[in-house]
Formats: sequence, C-alpha cells, structure tokens
Amino acid sequence: MGDIDAVGRRQSSRQLTVRRFRGGELGSGDDPDLVATEEPFEIRLGYSRRDGSRAEEPVSITMRTPGHDEDLAVGFLFTEGIIRARSDVQGVVARGQRAGDGLINVVRVELEPGVEVDFKRLERNFYMTSSCGVCGKASIDAVAVQGQYDVGAADFRMPGAALGRIPAALKTKQAVFEQTGGLHASGLFDAAGEIGALREDVGRHNALDKLIGQALMRGEVPLQSRGVIVSGRASFELMQKAKMAGVPLVAAVGAPSSLAVELAREFGITLVGFLKSDRFNVYSRPDRIV
Amino acid sequence: MGDIDAVGRRQSSRQLTVRRFRGGELGSGDDPDLVATEEPFEIRLGYSRRDGSRAEEPVSITMRTPGHDEDLAVGFLFTEGIIRARSDVQGVVARGQRAGDGLINVVRVELEPGVEVDFKRLERNFYMTSSCGVCGKASIDAVAVQGQYDVGAADFRMPGAALGRIPAALKTKQAVFEQTGGLHASGLFDAAGEIGALREDVGRHNALDKLIGQALMRGEVPLQSRGVIVSGRASFELMQKAKMAGVPLVAAVGAPSSLAVELAREFGITLVGFLKSDRFNVYSRPDRIV
Repeated sequence: MGDIDAVGRRQSSRQLTVRRFRGGELGSGDDPDLVATEEPFEIRLGYSRRDGSRAEEPVSITMRTPGHDEDLAVGFLFTEGIIRARSDVQGVVARGQRAGDGLINVVRVELEPGVEVDFKRLERNFYMTSSCGVCGKASIDAVAVQGQYDVGAADFRMPGAALGRIPAALKTKQAVFEQTGGLHASGLFDAAGEIGALREDVGRHNALDKLIGQALMRGEVPLQSRGVIVSGRASFELMQKAKMAGVPLVAAVGAPSSLAVELAREFGITLVGFLKSDRFNVYSRPDRIV
Repeated sequence: MGDIDAVGRRQSSRQLTVRRFRGGELGSGDDPDLVATEEPFEIRLGYSRRDGSRAEEPVSITMRTPGHDEDLAVGFLFTEGIIRARSDVQGVVARGQRAGDGLINVVRVELEPGVEVDFKRLERNFYMTSSCGVCGKASIDAVAVQGQYDVGAADFRMPGAALGRIPAALKTKQAVFEQTGGLHASGLFDAAGEIGALREDVGRHNALDKLIGQALMRGEVPLQSRGVIVSGRASFELMQKAKMAGVPLVAAVGAPSSLAVELAREFGITLVGFLKSDRFNVYSRPDRIV
C-alpha cells in the first residue's frame, strides 16, 4: 500500500484516483491525486493501581493525520489536564490494532507509578463531551482553573514586522499542505518571528497538541517565550490549549471567534487575527506588539 | 448588550474592539470590529419512562454560533442516530441557563411517548467521544450500519456547469461570513445548482446539522434530490451526516480527507472537492455529473 512507508509507518497523505472537471467537461479517465490522511486514533492510559499492579484505560478516540502520534497523545493528555508534567510520563507505546475493516492506531501513554488519575473527572469530561468544540469541558470556568501557568504575566514582546513574516514562513514549511490542500498547520515561533517546530493535521487542535506534546517531552513547557501560529481560525479550544502550555501569544491566519477573544482577554494572552505580511488585528494585550 | 437582539435572541456575530496593525505600525486607539459568536450549547432529551412519567437527560454540549438552535439540536440527534424520524419529535423547547459566568443555551428535544432511547449506546458513544472528529462513533462500521437510506441508489444527476455556479451563490448568501470572516457555511442545492437553505456556524458539522434538522422537521428527509455544499474541507463526519440524511452528492470548496473519500465510495455518495466556477475534482461516483 502506498500509504505505508518503508518502515511501516502510516503516512500523512494518501494516493488515489480522481476524475477532473476542466473547461466545461468531465474527463473520461482517472488521474492520480493525493489527499490528506484522516484515520481513527485511540489514546490509552497505562497507570498503577494503589496495590501497585498496572492497568490500562481508554481515554479518547479522535480522527487525526498519522505522524507524531506520541506527541499528539501526550499533548492531548496535557492540554486536557489529565497529566500535569513531563515527569508524569514514563513512556509512550504505539501499536496498530484492527477494528472492523480499518486499522485504528493505538498509543498507550504509560504513567509513572504514583501519578494519580482522576477517573471521575475523566468520565464526567467524556460524558459531557459532544460532537466537537468543548472537548471535555463542562464550562469555560473549568479551563481557567486547570491552567498551571500565568500567561498574563509572561514577559514576551515582539515586533509587528516580525509577526508579519510568519505566514510566508509557515507556507514554505507546510510540505504536506502543498500536496493535498487538506491540512491545518500549527507552528511555534520566537520573538524574532522564526518558526521552530511545525505540525500538520486534519484537525487543528491535533496539530497544536502535537506541538505542545513535543515541547512537553523536551522540557520546554511552559512556552513563555514562544508564540503559536495557526493556519486557520482561532477558536475556544486553541486558546485553552495555549493557556495550558503557557503560551503568551496566539496568531491566526483566519478570524477569531467571540469566545476565543473572551478567553484571550481573561487569560492575558495576546490574540492576533487575520495575520498578513503587512496587516493584522490585535484582539487582546496589544502591549506585547512593539 | 449588542449581541442580543430586540427579542432577546443571541446573535451570530458580536461587536468588540480591536487594535489594528497597518503600514508597519500598531494603531494607538481601538477600532470597532465584528467577530463570529461561539457559545456553549447543551442538548437535552425529554423522554417517557416505561411507567409513563417524563424524564430528562443531557446528551451533548457543543460550541456553536447562535441561530437555528432547534434545528441544530434535532439535526444532531438525527445524524447521531438517536432519533430516527421527524415523528419521534414531539417538540423542541429552548431556554437559557447560567453556568459559571456565562450563559449556556439549552435546548430540550421532547420525544413522543413510546420512542425508545438506547441509553447504553448513548453512553458508550459519548464515552468513546474524543476531542473532536469521531463524534461518538467507536468505529466507521457503526456509521454504515446506522444509515436508513441507500444513497448509492439515489437517481440524482446534475450538470457540471451548474455545480460550478454554486461557490459564487454560496458567497453572496453568506451574510455573516462577509462581516466576520469566521463562519463555516453549509447549503442545500438542487440539480440546477440553486441553493435553497443555507446555514452558518463556527463548527462546520453544526452548520450541516442545522440544515438537516430543518429539513427533517419539514418532512424533506431523505434528501435524495439534493446536494450539500460546504465552504471548507470535507471530512469523515460530513460524509456520515450526509449519509444519515440520504444526500447523494457532497461538494466541498476545499479538500477532502482520505476517510471522506473512502466513506463516499463505500456509501455511493458523489464527492466533489476543490469546487471552483470552472473546475473541480470528483472523488467518487462521477456518473452523477452530466
């Protein structure tokens, strides 16, 4: 199969055939094309019971684009408040598993002995979870309580001109997007506008979780001297994830939602929207743009 | 508050202030701006117990843009397979409710006596639900089983040129998008490319649920002689919702994901991507484009 590479990894894009409509006519034959891969992904927790024996609990199934699965799992658990620090994580085990006709990719995050998981809270979260958007939060207040970091106090500043260079830098780095047009991207940048890590996914929250998971495992969280760029719009959950990781500036190529603006103001995050090379809007904490 | 209209409804966009960066400089004062409203929304089920007494159960919390809330609730329950027909619904009751600092909008869908709700399934669904994407489906197979309609057999055909006219028609109808740049749109069109209903939301699945909910309450489901246009990308869940509502053609202005293509082929839905006035790609069932 063309969508599995030489070392057996699932790939982030998949080849298939397509019929093209051009110049008023539908082609008579099929052409090859690439689409972004979207596949089920299950996150499980491995943890120690009080008697010391190990147990496993499924936590979440999401659709994601393969690649950086371990980062995604760790980042998701961290931005959901289920793990609190890199030191909670003993290791991450990935494995494929058949389910029905398809392959579900399963990642088990092994917690260190002694790390307590609040299963009541977990259950409540996932019961309250809906068809997307809230992602396990019963209310906005829960988010504000969970965050460990005071992003409002972060002493991060950057020139507006440096911000303006980011969309172009993001585009050149978005390799898969160029092929498929189907992926959201999220990147971390510094005060000079230099993009470090960049991740792509069919889900924009996944792209950010991948970034944050990697940063957490590298010991770089809280990300107090970094900004986050997102290729699409800024919604509630992106602000929440930024807050959890201690990121003081979020810039979106697209529009922010009302709740994103409210959260940014409550958290003290600088929120930039409609970011272009020579213009953008600042919805909160403009004092960080110099 | 500017975001509540004269009859007390929450509005789909909200006015706020913004600091603009233009020509290399950050403005010294605030300018007014509009953003798309994103707010929590809870769907509850009112149903009869076996002894005839009435009971209520919360089903889902999602973030949505206010407007057509009743349609959203009914559409969500229908595309999730919780209700099976318009005749299951006795009525829909909307009410606001305070939660923490914010207003959660609550809609209760009252089921007719005798309509059975599979709470086991509901619970399992929501337990398996994750940070978005799967939206209550443990696996893709579950989707294929649930659908009542054979969309593959639908005798729907339309000229490619009529399809090409849809993106422009969608844009002129997207009133709120013009103001905020922050909403996904979804519309129903006929074989001539004429757009009937159009709905907008910060969540693209919500926009489609609003459309389908309205159609269900009007007795128009299955939508065998309609296509659906979505302003963004085509993902797993949009195909699933189209299948549940019996829609034989889905057209996306953006790219499809691999899973969207797989489902379209399995269901026999015509999937069009990258729809522009003079060109588009057909990923499945091109025989419906004439």
